[in-house]
Amino acid sequence: MKLKIEGIFPPIATPFADGRVAHDRLRENLERWNKTRLAGYAVFGSNGESVFLDQEEKLALVDTVKENLPQDKLLIAGTGCESTEATVKLTNLAAERGADAALVVTPHYYKGNMDNAALRKHYLRIADESDVPILIYNVPKFTGISVVPELVASLAEHSNIIGIKDSSGNIAQVGEMIATTPPPPTFHVLAGSAGHLLAALGLGASGGILALANVAPDECCKIFEDFRSGRYAEARELQLKLLAANKAVTAQFGVSGLKAALDMVGYFGGDPRSPLLPLGENQRNELREILKGAGLI
Amino acid sequence: MKLKIEGIFPPIATPFADGRVAHDRLRENLERWNKTRLAGYAVFGSNGESVFLDQEEKLALVDTVKENLPQDKLLIAGTGCESTEATVKLTNLAAERGADAALVVTPHYYKGNMDNAALRKHYLRIADESDVPILIYNVPKFTGISVVPELVASLAEHSNIIGIKDSSGNIAQVGEMIATTPPPPTFHVLAGSAGHLLAALGLGASGGILALANVAPDECCKIFEDFRSGRYAEARELQLKLLAANKAVTAQFGVSGLKAALDMVGYFGGDPRSPLLPLGENQRNELREILKGAGLI
Amino acid sequence: MKLKIEGIFPPIATPFADGRVAHDRLRENLERWNKTRLAGYAVFGSNGESVFLDQEEKLALVDTVKENLPQDKLLIAGTGCESTEATVKLTNLAAERGADAALVVTPHYYKGNMDNAALRKHYLRIADESDVPILIYNVPKFTGISVVPELVASLAEHSNIIGIKDSSGNIAQVGEMIATTPPPPTFHVLAGSAGHLLAALGLGASGGILALANVAPDECCKIFEDFRSGRYAEARELQLKLLAANKAVTAQFGVSGLKAALDMVGYFGGDPRSPLLPLGENQRNELREILKGAGLI
Amino acid sequence: MKLKIEGIFPPIATPFADGRVAHDRLRENLERWNKTRLAGYAVFGSNGESVFLDQEEKLALVDTVKENLPQDKLLIAGTGCESTEATVKLTNLAAERGADAALVVTPHYYKGNMDNAALRKHYLRIADESDVPILIYNVPKFTGISVVPELVASLAEHSNIIGIKDSSGNIAQVGEMIATTPPPPTFHVLAGSAGHLLAALGLGASGGILALANVAPDECCKIFEDFRSGRYAEARELQLKLLAANKAVTAQFGVSGLKAALDMVGYFGGDPRSPLLPLGENQRNELREILKGAGLI
Repeated sequence: MKLKIEGIFPPIATPFADGRVAHDRLRENLERWNKTRLAGYAVFGSNGESVFLDQEEKLALVDTVKENLPQDKLLIAGTGCESTEATVKLTNLAAERGADAALVVTPHYYKGNMDNAALRKHYLRIADESDVPILIYNVPKFTGISVVPELVASLAEHSNIIGIKDSSGNIAQVGEMIATTPPPPTFHVLAGSAGHLLAALGLGASGGILALANVAPDECCKIFEDFRSGRYAEARELQLKLLAANKAVTAQFGVSGLKAALDMVGYFGGDPRSPLLPLGENQRNELREILKGAGLI
Repeated sequence: MKLKIEGIFPPIATPFADGRVAHDRLRENLERWNKTRLAGYAVFGSNGESVFLDQEEKLALVDTVKENLPQDKLLIAGTGCESTEATVKLTNLAAERGADAALVVTPHYYKGNMDNAALRKHYLRIADESDVPILIYNVPKFTGISVVPELVASLAEHSNIIGIKDSSGNIAQVGEMIATTPPPPTFHVLAGSAGHLLAALGLGASGGILALANVAPDECCKIFEDFRSGRYAEARELQLKLLAANKAVTAQFGVSGLKAALDMVGYFGGDPRSPLLPLGENQRNELREILKGAGLI
Repeated sequence: MKLKIEGIFPPIATPFADGRVAHDRLRENLERWNKTRLAGYAVFGSNGESVFLDQEEKLALVDTVKENLPQDKLLIAGTGCESTEATVKLTNLAAERGADAALVVTPHYYKGNMDNAALRKHYLRIADESDVPILIYNVPKFTGISVVPELVASLAEHSNIIGIKDSSGNIAQVGEMIATTPPPPTFHVLAGSAGHLLAALGLGASGGILALANVAPDECCKIFEDFRSGRYAEARELQLKLLAANKAVTAQFGVSGLKAALDMVGYFGGDPRSPLLPLGENQRNELREILKGAGLI
Repeated sequence: MKLKIEGIFPPIATPFADGRVAHDRLRENLERWNKTRLAGYAVFGSNGESVFLDQEEKLALVDTVKENLPQDKLLIAGTGCESTEATVKLTNLAAERGADAALVVTPHYYKGNMDNAALRKHYLRIADESDVPILIYNVPKFTGISVVPELVASLAEHSNIIGIKDSSGNIAQVGEMIATTPPPPTFHVLAGSAGHLLAALGLGASGGILALANVAPDECCKIFEDFRSGRYAEARELQLKLLAANKAVTAQFGVSGLKAALDMVGYFGGDPRSPLLPLGENQRNELREILKGAGLI
């Protein structure tokens, strides 16, 4: 049976207290998110401060989310590491603890060497050896490299590679990926940012893994549902209304902004780990105004 | 009375023969384009090899297009120069010869100094002194700089700045521009590439100035009309089908590819000026296959 | 007889008054520069606001400099245009008016197409048809492209291509160019910024075409002479002392900063053409402190 | 007593066999390197495939190098992690096992947020809490960010931050760092690539941490010694001769090239970990010719 990755997933923020993962706070957040139409959760993605977590912390996150996961929601784990072997290992540990799929960021430290041949071999070996299906994660703003549609089309032939989260925002490229891969549930192209959610849906994306869905789960789901139900004008209106808020919790203020926004809308956000700096007071005020403008507070 | 910039405009290729502008060939091309639903033409934009033309050649192009322009079509001239004064001068000369509006690329040689203050002053002075309305032209792949939505919103307050052609392909940014500027005919946000035409229309763009519309005018117009008429599935299907062809005549093979494609679909393309190199035989074969795949030949 | 390009050349700023080139002010500047050991002048390079000048203005600059040029100094003209043909034409007009050599910036608007084959053909044709020798001008910060050493080595085989001004600041690349081209006077590698003058000389560069030499001609010449005479410690000390001033008149404040600095050290600088903005008062104060720190005022 | 970081250090390659660190092979390499005038070793830097090693493997590398370290050589460990806390922890574990200093790469996943304030706080806290002195590691080609001289000057005031390895190749910036920090042994500016070794020494650098020193330790040391002894012409000649080989084992072929080169010159190199691909036969042949040209085989 094929896994269907459809709808809206937040790459959830990882709450910290006294320097440790605050599982109780996470449970409270999940309790609220569980009441929405979110299709599931992505744990320790870029917005979950994956690069600041050790393996034990990551697996404990899988446990906590799994324990609080309604049956109709999926759990995706951000298991991409720089090395192929470490990625396989983490993926299978996460799978054992209950992850339904793995989101695998492109390795990128040695950018100059990450050509199509290297990336292809990396993903194929992971797909071969993983106990759960794989989603490619393309996020040039963090990695400095971008996966080309030709490579995606080729990787989509592997039965265990079932999709891509594209955060490049290059909508023509998203379109090319959709045009050259099989339709869901064989392969899913997912928007990687709420900024291009409607545009991606309009070309055939099956959903999105969106930082903004942490703080605006209902609104992100509504865009998806309005679009699917042919309420195009409503979808467009809401998409335009959310753009500034989306920029605020991504490019403008980053993970620190996402966490501050969570606090402002009633979830637990807290501070990011160092070296990320919490927002200053002026930034918080600016963020609050933006969230008000979007109708989120 | 306000100028309405709506629908599809090709930034037309400039035909050369024996090193000079081939006005007879241009007339033949116009004769064919005139039979389509194109909303008008942009002369000497990036795809018209503007940087290879001298002022006399540019004005002669305005003359030829104007002489062959049906009453219901608009003539837009790519008058942006590096200096503010030269831009004003060329804009008004083009206006005198019949241009309806001017497309003004961001000055970019001194990229490091082209901050919002410099660009703002540049565009405001041009808008103040121009005899025709101004469209901002944002094309980072050629200029190395990108106009931010905040600046666009501010410039949109000037009554003689009536739109922007955005070729960045950053669809979230296109959305922000639409969300923060007045609707047409006060301000028009136009897709700058067929690769994001449907996505831009979906957010409220009023049309596009598209290299691909040189070789596929009917198809580009059909996407616009299908979208406007609510035939969304047809629009999407055609958009996806054209992506590879669009990439071929822009990022992949550039102006040389656009001209070769014109030749292949029955217009006159010819060779670009040096230092652009005409396509080699292998490239031509690859291009031909792509155009066939898109149903253009 | 081969032209020897050795020592320090300022790419001179173009003085404006009431929007026109102020030839009288230029003559005054030249009178002062002529008393230094500068090896000559480069007119209408990047620092001469070449992109804001029309052809007539450029040729008038050649005239004025030529009329005021001591016999032992060289006159280099920045004749690179986007098109090959325009470059040849301007080069030969400048040569006719007395330019000794031409500095030809890489064409760059169509960056994606300016591969080695296109650049090679461009430079070879210019070299073939030019009445004076050609210097390649590599300035990635303005052009967005960089000439690779392999191409330089290949172009160096043409007898009319006698050197390169490298402003990339990539000193390993400068070294590779020196290692793979014939020594002066067959081929000259010239530092394109005072920031890497000593480093380039240390690897075998024959001099530099340096914005800073506008305002600190004696100091730039002294680094060259100290190095050539084996006074290495003095050269190093002066090089380090000038770094902040060099950055101020290039990357930090650009041409506007260069012109403000000229005013501060007793030359005529004046304002740049629009869209470049003159420095604000705070910037001027910061610049003044930097020049003081470098011992230039 | 202050630690003096002077001379040439290779960031040593990590040998693997059957997927595990091959400590016996490392011992053989160290035996040969120990006979040279290398000033010490950097373990698990970029060239040591740090991002592919887990903590246990890293500490085992410290052990093996420490056991085979002559008294007059230093051991530097590449302990930079994305999180501040993880960096402190790894640094102190490495110090406990015998590392003399730590090389701390800039955190970089969240590039957009790594402004001077964030980087400053990160380094100061590490410096405060580390049991050994800290060297900043600036390597934009891998990290996508660059440390500015102003930040370096500010960090140099901390007594436990004793230098920087600069791999940017921006020689003017290296000069600025030297001009604005105290001289060794308070603060050391080190070339991060053999491509700018001589240039950096000429401005006052105290040495280099150089990938090329893995395969050409004697030659790199000779440049340093020739320069220090005033044999400038010899230093220059050797510097130019090594440029192509240096490029081959860095930008051109990366870590895979470095390891292949080690095999070719008689050390053990072996294959890199996946996703890095070993060189193909054509690449090996090209590399061999380059090493021959540099007189290394």
